[in-house]
Order: sequence, then C-alpha cells, then structure tokens
Amino acid sequence: MADETLERSLLYDFYGELLTEKQRDAFDLYYNDDLSLAEIADLWDCSRQNVRDAVKKAESVMAEYEEKTGLVARHRKLNRELEIIGSKLETLAGEMPDSQKALFEDIRRDIERLKDGI
Amino acid sequence: MADETLERSLLYDFYGELLTEKQRDAFDLYYNDDLSLAEIADLWDCSRQNVRDAVKKAESVMAEYEEKTGLVARHRKLNRELEIIGSKLETLAGEMPDSQKALFEDIRRDIERLKDGI
Repeated sequence: MADETLERSLLYDFYGELLTEKQRDAFDLYYNDDLSLAEIADLWDCSRQNVRDAVKKAESVMAEYEEKTGLVARHRKLNRELEIIGSKLETLAGEMPDSQKALFEDIRRDIERLKDGI
Repeated sequence: MADETLERSLLYDFYGELLTEKQRDAFDLYYNDDLSLAEIADLWDCSRQNVRDAVKKAESVMAEYEEKTGLVARHRKLNRELEIIGSKLETLAGEMPDSQKALFEDIRRDIERLKDGI
C-alpha cells in the first residue's frame, strides 16, 4: 500500500467515527469504494462541489485530530518496532532446540498477528 | 495502579489534547497533581462548583471519544497480548543456547519497553 494511502486508511480507522455521517460517507465512498465525485453527487442528488467539500472536510478534521493526539504516529512507530522484533526472532529461528520450536513459532505468530491487527 | 486510575490516566494520555484548556487544567490539577476542588477554586478565584463542572466535563468528553473510537480499549488489549508474549519468552529463557542469549534478552527488553511505552 502506498504510504499516503496507508496513512489515509489509518486516519479513517482511528478517527472515522468522529466524523459526521455525511463526511464519513463521502470519504468512504470516494476512497474506500473508489466512486468518483460525480458518481457520489448523482447518488446523493447534490453538486460535485458539495461532495468534494465533504471529502476535504473529512480529511481536515481527521488531520486535526492526529495533529493534536499523535495516535496514528504512535501506532506506526509501534508497528515498526514489532517489525524489528519479528526480524530478531527470525534470526533466532534456526537456533531453537527442537523441544522449544512449537512455543517459539507460537510467539512469532503472536507478533505477526499484532502487526496486522493493530 | 488501580484499574479506574489506570483507565483515567490512559484516557487523558489519549484524548487530553482534545479538551479545552480549562477542562485539561482542571483534570490535571485534580487527578494528576491531587489538588482538592477547593484548592483549585482558590487558585482560579472561582467557585468549587465551577471547578467540579470542568473536571466532570473533561471526563465526559474523553469518555465520549473513547466510546466512539475504542482506541484505549484497543491499546489495553494490545498490552495484554504483549504480557502473554512476555510470559512465553520467559518460558523459553532457560532453553536458549549461550550463543543466542544476548539477542534473546534484547528481544525480551524490546517487548518490555513496548508494554511500558505505549
């Protein structure tokens, strides 16, 4: 996922519920469902400009929440640290005694799941 | 830390910057600096009721953010999962070949740091 797309998707995941219904729907249809502004305007029977304003407003509201709280940045930092832990575990993988391999693989899966799920 | 105190401290950590300055200061002086409502009222030259309202408002605003986003709950879940990973690593600790002990301890420290820092 391109970095900008990932950032947008995280902002929506973190702060989407803080938007108004119209802002959220506009953002969702435009970015997540990939409809054009004109298609959404048709759907809502309003102007293209009106839809564009709602999308832009959604973006600026979420950017403001992030500027104040920094929670998405914190999440990304955490994910980078889990990546590093994953790499270190990878290095250890060949060294585990057979009797401990199952538990070791279990830990690696836990780390992978945390990376994906948060 | 008692569970209620931990929850309050997390809410403030996550959403404190979204409060008004007055709400934030009231919450901070009351809960973090442990001043009484009367002491804050003296400091601000206002009524005790006025301070109490600001503290209560701060709490309800943050509770509303949490109700909508669930970010503190997500954080607590993540921390519980890191606890479990920490315990599993503990079990492995006695089994590591000498040549890998330094890297293994490094990973354990990474996990501890993530638990504390997030």
